[in-house]
Order: sequence, then structure tokens, then C-alpha cells
Amino acid sequence: MRIGEFQDFIRQKYCERDTQRGTPATFMWFVEEVGELATALAGNDQDNKAEEFADVFAWLCTLANINGVDLEKAVEKYTVRGKPGFK
Amino acid sequence: MRIGEFQDFIRQKYCERDTQRGTPATFMWFVEEVGELATALAGNDQDNKAEEFADVFAWLCTLANINGVDLEKAVEKYTVRGKPGFK
Repeated sequence: MRIGEFQDFIRQKYCERDTQRGTPATFMWFVEEVGELATALAGNDQDNKAEEFADVFAWLCTLANINGVDLEKAVEKYTVRGKPGFK
Repeated sequence: MRIGEFQDFIRQKYCERDTQRGTPATFMWFVEEVGELATALAGNDQDNKAEEFADVFAWLCTLANINGVDLEKAVEKYTVRGKPGFK
């Protein structure tokens, strides 16, 4: 699945509610998922890790949707132009 | 670009260093990028927002790589099976 396809999937399913909630409140949900990912990474349940990675990615797409950012285009700074200072 | 393609791109470029650094230290880098995303979202610079979204996504791929998680497969819980409790 393309990055943009997944972002569109999230947009179609959740964008109305996400837009009403707004960026700050959505960011809090996103960070909650980041916390759940931390918990999963500290454990040994591989399925749980996969679940939490998917949740963080989904909420990242949600934040991108309500802020007019195209994630697939955004990552071209790595894949097309490269990024000198990265890591 | 497919989700898995981007994850592979990050793996090929950074996996050796990422693996040596390990999950806890890599998670700290990831969260630093999440903080930079928060700063960007509070502003009005659309290019900066796109940059920070890309950085968070790249570090999420890094974390997935060193924890044996396939992000493209992980998001199937949304796109294929659905997830009853999501939001």
C-alpha cells in the first residue's frame, strides 16, 4: 500500500471528526499512542508492537490530514533529495 | 511510494547504526522529532510542518526496523480487518 493511500484511507474514515477536534487535541491523542508504543517496545509481545506502530502511524496521518500535509510527498526529502543533516 | 519501500529505504541507509544504538536511545531521538513536530504545528510554516512529519515518520520506520515490525503489514489492522475500537 502506498503511503498516500493509507493517509487517504484515514482521511475518508475520520477526517470530519478529526477536523472538529482540531490539532492540539489530536496531538494529545497522538502522544498517547506514542506512550503505548513505548510500553509495547519495553515488552516482548511482537503482535502488540505491530499494533502500536500502526496506531502511531494512523494518528500521524490524521495530524497530517488536518494540517494539509501530504506525507508521501514529505518523505521525498529523504528518498529524492536526501537530507544532509539526517542522523 | 509504498510504506514498505520507505521502511526499506531507511533500513538500508541507517539500520547498522540504528541497531547499535538500540531501542531506548532510538526512542529518545524519535520523541525529540515528535517535539519538533509539535513546534512546527504551532506555527504557520507549511514547509517546516512537512519536514517534521517526514522526520517523525522516518524515525518511526527506524524503530520498526530494529524491532522487527513490518509497518505496511501492521496497518492492515485498519485497511483489511478494520479495528472495532479505533477512535
